[in-house]
Amino acid sequence: MPAKPQKRANEPILLRDDQDGVATLTLNRPDKYNALSRELMGMILDHLDRLAHDRHVRVVVLAARGKAFCAGHDLREMLADPSPPAMEALFQQCSQMMLALQRIPQPVIARVHGTATAAGCQLVAQCDLAVAAATAKFATSGINVGLYCGTPSVAVSRNLPRKQAMEMLLTGEFIDAKTALHYGLVNKVVPQAKLDAAVAKMAKTIADKGPAFIAAGKQLFYRQIENGMNLAYKHATDVMVQNMQRPDARKGIEAFLNKRPMPKWQDR
Amino acid sequence: MPAKPQKRANEPILLRDDQDGVATLTLNRPDKYNALSRELMGMILDHLDRLAHDRHVRVVVLAARGKAFCAGHDLREMLADPSPPAMEALFQQCSQMMLALQRIPQPVIARVHGTATAAGCQLVAQCDLAVAAATAKFATSGINVGLYCGTPSVAVSRNLPRKQAMEMLLTGEFIDAKTALHYGLVNKVVPQAKLDAAVAKMAKTIADKGPAFIAAGKQLFYRQIENGMNLAYKHATDVMVQNMQRPDARKGIEAFLNKRPMPKWQDR
Amino acid sequence: MPAKPQKRANEPILLRDDQDGVATLTLNRPDKYNALSRELMGMILDHLDRLAHDRHVRVVVLAARGKAFCAGHDLREMLADPSPPAMEALFQQCSQMMLALQRIPQPVIARVHGTATAAGCQLVAQCDLAVAAATAKFATSGINVGLYCGTPSVAVSRNLPRKQAMEMLLTGEFIDAKTALHYGLVNKVVPQAKLDAAVAKMAKTIADKGPAFIAAGKQLFYRQIENGMNLAYKHATDVMVQNMQRPDARKGIEAFLNKRPMPKWQDR
Repeated sequence: MPAKPQKRANEPILLRDDQDGVATLTLNRPDKYNALSRELMGMILDHLDRLAHDRHVRVVVLAARGKAFCAGHDLREMLADPSPPAMEALFQQCSQMMLALQRIPQPVIARVHGTATAAGCQLVAQCDLAVAAATAKFATSGINVGLYCGTPSVAVSRNLPRKQAMEMLLTGEFIDAKTALHYGLVNKVVPQAKLDAAVAKMAKTIADKGPAFIAAGKQLFYRQIENGMNLAYKHATDVMVQNMQRPDARKGIEAFLNKRPMPKWQDR
Repeated sequence: MPAKPQKRANEPILLRDDQDGVATLTLNRPDKYNALSRELMGMILDHLDRLAHDRHVRVVVLAARGKAFCAGHDLREMLADPSPPAMEALFQQCSQMMLALQRIPQPVIARVHGTATAAGCQLVAQCDLAVAAATAKFATSGINVGLYCGTPSVAVSRNLPRKQAMEMLLTGEFIDAKTALHYGLVNKVVPQAKLDAAVAKMAKTIADKGPAFIAAGKQLFYRQIENGMNLAYKHATDVMVQNMQRPDARKGIEAFLNKRPMPKWQDR
Repeated sequence: MPAKPQKRANEPILLRDDQDGVATLTLNRPDKYNALSRELMGMILDHLDRLAHDRHVRVVVLAARGKAFCAGHDLREMLADPSPPAMEALFQQCSQMMLALQRIPQPVIARVHGTATAAGCQLVAQCDLAVAAATAKFATSGINVGLYCGTPSVAVSRNLPRKQAMEMLLTGEFIDAKTALHYGLVNKVVPQAKLDAAVAKMAKTIADKGPAFIAAGKQLFYRQIENGMNLAYKHATDVMVQNMQRPDARKGIEAFLNKRPMPKWQDR
């Protein structure tokens, strides 16, 4: 994915490319720093809804073209109609899209090659996993221009320690990729030239697992983490009991005990 | 703030100094290691209540005089009347003061120059942000003398990872400033000589933002973090819709889009 | 605890050894990588229930014999009867055992000398504290064989940052001891040769405190962390008021104020 700030005139603003069970969605408004216009958010949500039911897709990668990963909301569009009904619709649409990243059964990996600011930083925080180039930078910078990153704070404060999240939100300052790794905002930082390989490796590792187990596990993760430990263990017990009823589980465990290769996972 | 263990006889035990929108509250019981007597806690709470309504103050700094930052509760005073009613009143007062640090609209930065122990460590944890000198040390050391740091555990366990918080609480051992940074208890560690400059820089960065947005953001942060993600996004959406109705927001975003300097923020 | 993969025929599969107020429970199925069979989990739970009422025990250490710390569930046993009732009973038993590690009044320190996988990694996460040899490794590897680590995810996601927990759970990959320390899964990492000394030092530090305060503190920790901050402070206030009613507290604080050595703690 070379630097290519201009998109061809007839290209859609969101691209999808599938390979070996990995679907890559690419934000394609490079000249707008991939700002999340209503149209773009609508397309992301549509694609996620479709991916959720696509049995061939095991992992989703969220990437972006051009210099920036994503600069957040489309401020020009917001300013054109900042009335309460318009703003409510906008942030509800945005939140629906963000929650869809968690709702779909496939894990979503953010591939962050450049700056991710405001709702762009939120996108990274909301993805299940994230791999960043060493040159990537992150900020919840809305506060600098009079638009506090409220919705981003939901995702960011669930990734970073409390004081570190607060500092980003109140100062609007950038953190570099290494700091983002230290704070827990991303999983890996690699040189820009190795970004695609690192994302592909993580995606393949997960795509090789049984998709039914990955889906149940992802869903359980976000469900149990919002409950107390007793209830969390009850939810988790249900998931494990169901897991063991799947033919794939029994075949997999048998293969492991007999030192045979894993079966071709069939359960969806 | 040079080392000055003795305070002048006629000085109050809590000082307030305002400069450029930053109010600094300084614990001034250096000979008592700034122990939180009833009187001192009452004065902190009074000052915070007054600051909450002071439109000229954008950021609060919590500092301390003398060798220690704060040694926690005033044990001599506690021992004078450790009856259940007295203790209940004391810890309710303390919790009210701690919660006021979150309740006031302005961000509070702890300026930690020396040891912060027990409720002194809690003060640091409860502030929104903290900058420490490299020589600062932190401990929830009550357990060493037969008084488990129960109320401090509330703030500390919301800053540090679970096992690290537990270790501090059960062993009572000190951690140094670098470890506190690693654990998430503080935001920055600087040489003692640069502490005031680092605090002033962070305070100015935040004081330069629109105060209405900072206030709404701080309030949202602590509200949304205690809820599930769906509800958190609902709260955040409300805050962003309201944010966009403020003239300052529209002026700020317009200035940004037109590459002009930010307006002088008017909204409170 | 030298490498000793074979246990003597007449040894129980769980050993208990008491020394100076520290009870060490040692998983003793080295030839099975200390897999958690129903029998072994039952014995752990029995021992924990008995330890809970043993006034001589101040700290519990959870250790293991052989090459591995613990490889998780006994998959052969599970496969023998993977019916829903059997699986439900198994994971309920496991969760009860895990919750008992938190329920007993004494702090539990995991002594991790080798690999801790799946429910073995959960054991480490569920203990209050953990010390690991530099050679220890950790994975929630169930996903590799078709059994997603659902119940382990409950404990792991309450120790690690969200994205790091997710990565372990979805990839099944190992992290080394240093990474486990960085993520918050363990408290200390030491060379293998110093593991016993490091565990003994931490255990002694805690065993020297007043046991009534340690017990109340541990219980409060897990209670308050699941509540909002207001309610958490109410719980904590109750604990501190009760703490101050104990003769040990008054004696301890008096000794501290008068620079005398701490009393011999009497309260249980």
